[in-house]
Amino acid sequence: MATPLGPGAEFDLIRRFLADADAGQHPDVRVGPGDDCAVIIGDGIAITVDMTVEDVHFRRAWLEPEEIGYHAAAGAISDLAAMAARPVGILASVALGPGDEAGVGPAVMRGVVAAARDAGAVLLGGDLTRSPGPLVIDIVAAGDAPRPVLRSGARPGDEVWVTGALGGAAAAVAAWLDGREPSALARTAFARPTPRVREARWLAERGVPTAMVDLSDGIAGDAGHIAAASGVGLVIRAHALPVAAGAASAPDAVRLAAAGGEDYELCFTASPGSVTGAPGEAEATGAGGLAVAFEAEFGVSLTRVGEVVEGSGVEVLDEAGGPLSLRGFQHWGHP
Amino acid sequence: MATPLGPGAEFDLIRRFLADADAGQHPDVRVGPGDDCAVIIGDGIAITVDMTVEDVHFRRAWLEPEEIGYHAAAGAISDLAAMAARPVGILASVALGPGDEAGVGPAVMRGVVAAARDAGAVLLGGDLTRSPGPLVIDIVAAGDAPRPVLRSGARPGDEVWVTGALGGAAAAVAAWLDGREPSALARTAFARPTPRVREARWLAERGVPTAMVDLSDGIAGDAGHIAAASGVGLVIRAHALPVAAGAASAPDAVRLAAAGGEDYELCFTASPGSVTGAPGEAEATGAGGLAVAFEAEFGVSLTRVGEVVEGSGVEVLDEAGGPLSLRGFQHWGHP
Repeated sequence: MATPLGPGAEFDLIRRFLADADAGQHPDVRVGPGDDCAVIIGDGIAITVDMTVEDVHFRRAWLEPEEIGYHAAAGAISDLAAMAARPVGILASVALGPGDEAGVGPAVMRGVVAAARDAGAVLLGGDLTRSPGPLVIDIVAAGDAPRPVLRSGARPGDEVWVTGALGGAAAAVAAWLDGREPSALARTAFARPTPRVREARWLAERGVPTAMVDLSDGIAGDAGHIAAASGVGLVIRAHALPVAAGAASAPDAVRLAAAGGEDYELCFTASPGSVTGAPGEAEATGAGGLAVAFEAEFGVSLTRVGEVVEGSGVEVLDEAGGPLSLRGFQHWGHP
Repeated sequence: MATPLGPGAEFDLIRRFLADADAGQHPDVRVGPGDDCAVIIGDGIAITVDMTVEDVHFRRAWLEPEEIGYHAAAGAISDLAAMAARPVGILASVALGPGDEAGVGPAVMRGVVAAARDAGAVLLGGDLTRSPGPLVIDIVAAGDAPRPVLRSGARPGDEVWVTGALGGAAAAVAAWLDGREPSALARTAFARPTPRVREARWLAERGVPTAMVDLSDGIAGDAGHIAAASGVGLVIRAHALPVAAGAASAPDAVRLAAAGGEDYELCFTASPGSVTGAPGEAEATGAGGLAVAFEAEFGVSLTRVGEVVEGSGVEVLDEAGGPLSLRGFQHWGHP
C-alpha cells in the first residue's frame, strides 16, 4: 500500500520502518505512506499532535527503545480517545540522535507502530531527520470523529468520572527520579499505557459524556481544561480517586493519583444519574447502570470523583474537605 | 473560535500564541484549537508533517525567529501543494530551548502563523514542550484533497516541468556555511519560501500533472520519488534548469539548481504537448499553451527540464549529455 520512495539514506531507513508496518492498510485511507501527504476520508477528521523529547519526557535509561515509541504514540492516540474519535492513522516525525540510525530508530518505530495497531490505526507516514542531541518523537494521530465529544459541554450539577486507575505512570517516574526501579505495574503504566479508544466510543455512543479530556498531565490540571472550556468549576475529591495498583504503596499515593501525569485515562462529566442510573433504578432493573456494563465490557472501572459546580477552575479536596496541597507536582515534563 | 484552556505555564504560552492567530477561523474547521483534537471536514483530508531541527536544518545565526517559523511551516504546506490540496489548517509542535519561552518562542509562532495565513490556512493547535538543547519545530499541515495528484502517474514519454527557479535557498545555505552573508534574494528564498499552493491547484484543475512532487531535497533527489512511485526513469537536463537569481552568480549555480534543497517549487510530469499545446497549436490559437496563461496568472515561470523514459531512477545530464557530478550534494540536513 506504501508508494515506493526514491534512493537515499533517509529513505532507506523509512523503507525499513514501513516494511513491517502493514502501512496504510485501512479502509479509510485513500493515499497511504510514501507520497507527499497521506489522504484519509471520514465525516469529520480529528487531528492531534504530541511531542516527546528525551530528557524532558523520558530518559533513555528508563525505557527500551520500543517502549519509548509506544509511550509516545499512545499519548497522541489518547487525544483521539478524548474526543471519542475512531483512530485511522498516525504519522511519526522522529529526530534521531547520533548513532540511533541502526538500532534505536527502528526499535522506536516498532513501538510506534505497535501502539497504532493496538488502537486500530496504521502508519501513514512521517518525517525522519537527525538530531544534534535529544531523541525527539512527534506523533500525529488522525481519526474519524463525526460527533466529537468536546471539553465545553459540562454543566453545573454534572458528575465527574474517570476510567481506570490513576498515578501508576507517575509512580514509575517518581521511582526513577529517586534512583529506584519502579514496580512492574508502575513501569508498565508508564511504558505501555492503553489509550481508552474503545471505552470512549462506547460511552459516547450511549450519550454519556457531556465533556471529556484524557489525563495526560494529571486530573488536577486536565480537569481545568473542562472547567475553562465549559465556563464552570470542577470539584474533585482526592480520596475518591481510584489509585493505580502501581502507586498504591507510595506514601504520596493520593497526590500521585491527583497530579501525576501520563495515565491516559479519561475524565468526563455526565448528567446526574446517567452513569449509575437514577436513584432506585439500578435496584429496579438489576442492571446497576452503565458503570456495571462498562466494567463487564472492558474490565476497566468507572469511578465518580467529583462534581461540576458554578464558578471556575478546579478544587481538589482532601479527606477533610480542605484543599489538597499539590506543591511540587506542577507538570511540564519531569526530568 | 479557540476553546479556552486551563491554567499553567505551558497553557499561558499557548494562549499567547493563539491570541493573534485568527485561530481556527476557517469554514472547513469544525473544532478549532484548545480541545483535545482539531476536527476538519473535507472530501479526502491530506495530512503531512515536516520536522525542522536547529543545527540540522538551520542555525540561529542565519535567521530571525519569525523566519525560522515561516521556513518550517512553508516546508509542510509545500507538501499539500505537491498533491494539489487546498490548505485548511496547521498544527505546530515546538520544543523550546532554554530561555526561548519569552522572545524566541512567540516570534517563531508568529512566523508559523504567517506562513499558514499566506497559504489560506489557520492555526488548529499543536504541542509545546521544553527542549534540553535544539529548537525543534514540527509542522502538521492538513488540507482538502478530493482529487490528489500522486507521485505514481508518470508515463514514459511524459515531459518533466518545474515551476519558478531553483537553487536560491541552497545558495543562501552555501554562503552561510562558507562564512559569507548570502545575497538578499538567496536569503529570502531560504527564509520565506512560497509554497506553490495556488499554482498546483490551477495546474490540477486543468488536468496537467500526471505526477507531482515538491522540491524539498533538490530535483535530483525528489524526481527519484516520481521515478520510484511511477516505475519509470526520469532524465533531467541540468542546463535546462531555471537557475534562481539568488544562485545565478555562484560558480556552481547549475549544481545548486539540480541538487540544492528547500526551494519548494513543484516538479511535475505532463503528457507531451499538454503544457505548451500540440506542435503548431500555439501558433494557431495565439495562446502559447498553458505555460503562458500560467505565467500571466502567477508571475511564475514553467520550464521544461526533462523527460520520462522507460527504466528507473533519475539521470541528471550535463551540457555535453554526460552524467552531472553531484558529489557532495547529498541532502540530509546541511550544517
